[in-house]
Amino acid sequence: MPELRFDPLKKTWVIISTERAKRPHDFSLISEEKKEEGECPFCPGNEDKTPPEIFAIREEGSKPNEPGWSIRVIPNKYPALKLEGKIEREGIGLYDRMSGVGAHEVIIESPEHGKSLADLPLEQIVKVLTVYKLRLKSLRADERFRYVLIFRNYRSIAGASLSHPHSQIIATPVTPKVLKEELSIAREHFSRKERCIFCDILRDEMRFGDRIVKIHKNYVLFTPFASCFPFECRLYPLRHSYDFAEIPDEELPELALALKDMLLRIKLALNDPPYNFVIHTAPSLHPRPGKPDYWGTIKEDFHWHIELVPRLTIMAGFEWGTGFYINPTPPEEAAKYLREVDNAVEGMLR
Amino acid sequence: MPELRFDPLKKTWVIISTERAKRPHDFSLISEEKKEEGECPFCPGNEDKTPPEIFAIREEGSKPNEPGWSIRVIPNKYPALKLEGKIEREGIGLYDRMSGVGAHEVIIESPEHGKSLADLPLEQIVKVLTVYKLRLKSLRADERFRYVLIFRNYRSIAGASLSHPHSQIIATPVTPKVLKEELSIAREHFSRKERCIFCDILRDEMRFGDRIVKIHKNYVLFTPFASCFPFECRLYPLRHSYDFAEIPDEELPELALALKDMLLRIKLALNDPPYNFVIHTAPSLHPRPGKPDYWGTIKEDFHWHIELVPRLTIMAGFEWGTGFYINPTPPEEAAKYLREVDNAVEGMLR
Repeated sequence: MPELRFDPLKKTWVIISTERAKRPHDFSLISEEKKEEGECPFCPGNEDKTPPEIFAIREEGSKPNEPGWSIRVIPNKYPALKLEGKIEREGIGLYDRMSGVGAHEVIIESPEHGKSLADLPLEQIVKVLTVYKLRLKSLRADERFRYVLIFRNYRSIAGASLSHPHSQIIATPVTPKVLKEELSIAREHFSRKERCIFCDILRDEMRFGDRIVKIHKNYVLFTPFASCFPFECRLYPLRHSYDFAEIPDEELPELALALKDMLLRIKLALNDPPYNFVIHTAPSLHPRPGKPDYWGTIKEDFHWHIELVPRLTIMAGFEWGTGFYINPTPPEEAAKYLREVDNAVEGMLR
Repeated sequence: MPELRFDPLKKTWVIISTERAKRPHDFSLISEEKKEEGECPFCPGNEDKTPPEIFAIREEGSKPNEPGWSIRVIPNKYPALKLEGKIEREGIGLYDRMSGVGAHEVIIESPEHGKSLADLPLEQIVKVLTVYKLRLKSLRADERFRYVLIFRNYRSIAGASLSHPHSQIIATPVTPKVLKEELSIAREHFSRKERCIFCDILRDEMRFGDRIVKIHKNYVLFTPFASCFPFECRLYPLRHSYDFAEIPDEELPELALALKDMLLRIKLALNDPPYNFVIHTAPSLHPRPGKPDYWGTIKEDFHWHIELVPRLTIMAGFEWGTGFYINPTPPEEAAKYLREVDNAVEGMLR
């Protein structure tokens, strides 16, 4: 059983894999692109090489775990957390630990091996977003989970172990630190001003304009004022909305367009770099023991959004040790380069 | 002039380089090891290829910026922060920024190009530590700086742009987030218990024993309970001490030994991996405007130490977006492997 451990000095929970621990010689030097060996387990026809599917969008008449799917959701073969079990909490001296209960799923975004999410037709991206919503709702129904993370690693340097297009979902029994901080900052801002801090940021960004990359009907793409990394992007819904799972289905085509637009800009302006994106959305709103009003104003104070970081620079040793980032590209410059590919992107979105 | 910007959602300061901004084609794919071109500017005889030295330990009779040195401190040729200038603070809408005033120095640890810090003789490591102390004290005398960071990136995947052995120092006009949090957690613990949290952790670790790698006379090497990364290490002084700059000179040989021991263990157990280490020590204790008792109990509540992270896994996109770490090697296992090289390390320390 994996274990969650709490660092009393950093106030972070860490997942420690206790089974199948990696030994010194299991680590290979981090290299530019890993070579894949053998057949791709995510390709149609190889359904038996993955754990049985949890969900799929399939052609009528096709059978589970056989070809005929256009999107397929499977448990991660090497999950960071285990689905079965009760959550046990324990203190050991100064430390805290709990059982590593959670879910770790893979969303195979297309049957086509060679495509990236940026290349998929809009209808297919709508399907991906529909599945994000469905899995988010389904995993949240499990009262053991406090947060459901949807994220995407593109290319091996960004952590993707297989190149076949896929996203991942991890449901955790604790709220990850960055989200916890963001939730509390949003609440604090709202309690003082009765305004959403994200809506305030959007208003500021729209007024300044120099970090805006693209304004869609209901979405805005911009580079944040204090970007930690070059060409970091944020995609915010313009209309206040605390939860990704609450997006009406009829709005998904516009989000698919905004997402594809962002990914194409990154691809064209930066020569198809590795990247990570994460959806920041509301946590599971189950009641907390002894805290009847725990969720307070969350529906008013939080605003879901997507954060994307292209992996252009070495990161995280020094930065991790200090929390200090040095960004060699001002976000205003980054926005300019991402706007310059307007025409090319326009052509590819039609 | 570089700029410091504050992210209201992440509560982090970021350094934004405004001169010589990196454009899209300035980024090359992150690769295993960069090739170095031309002569090494850190080698003896090439002193004119670096900015003039700030300090050096040299043979009697040798002249500044000429060969004859055993340690040389120079300004970073491409500094993240600028030494000249006043600190100007400004608010823009929701955001804050200040001028990027600070220092960025390089400590060339040896005239020998091909050596790593782990390979240097103990006397040479003592010199390196002596220079750390001197530069820490000297930079702290500048009232504009709030924190002085000493760190080391080893190999290009860990962020070293040159292979000649060197460490870096950055002095910043703000306290980096991780340190700020650590300082405040230490203060909170002390205010409740009148005990240093680091001393408490050491006591727990000594009692449990399974994460202890090596106990020296006054230093302890261990792998932290909630390690974010495989084979992460901590080197703590056993005797409570809040400040690296306060180590008596006569204790430096023992610290040199403990540091070399740690680096050799990492090198031997993990096949000479890239790594980063950072010294966490007290901030500059200049008075803060309007806060006469700002530093409170810092001499009792804080405990300097070294944090080391070998770069064995891909990090920081997903982790950065969420603050959630998945560590495939339990620290108890890591400690075991780092203890297994005891004999080999012993032989190399003589």
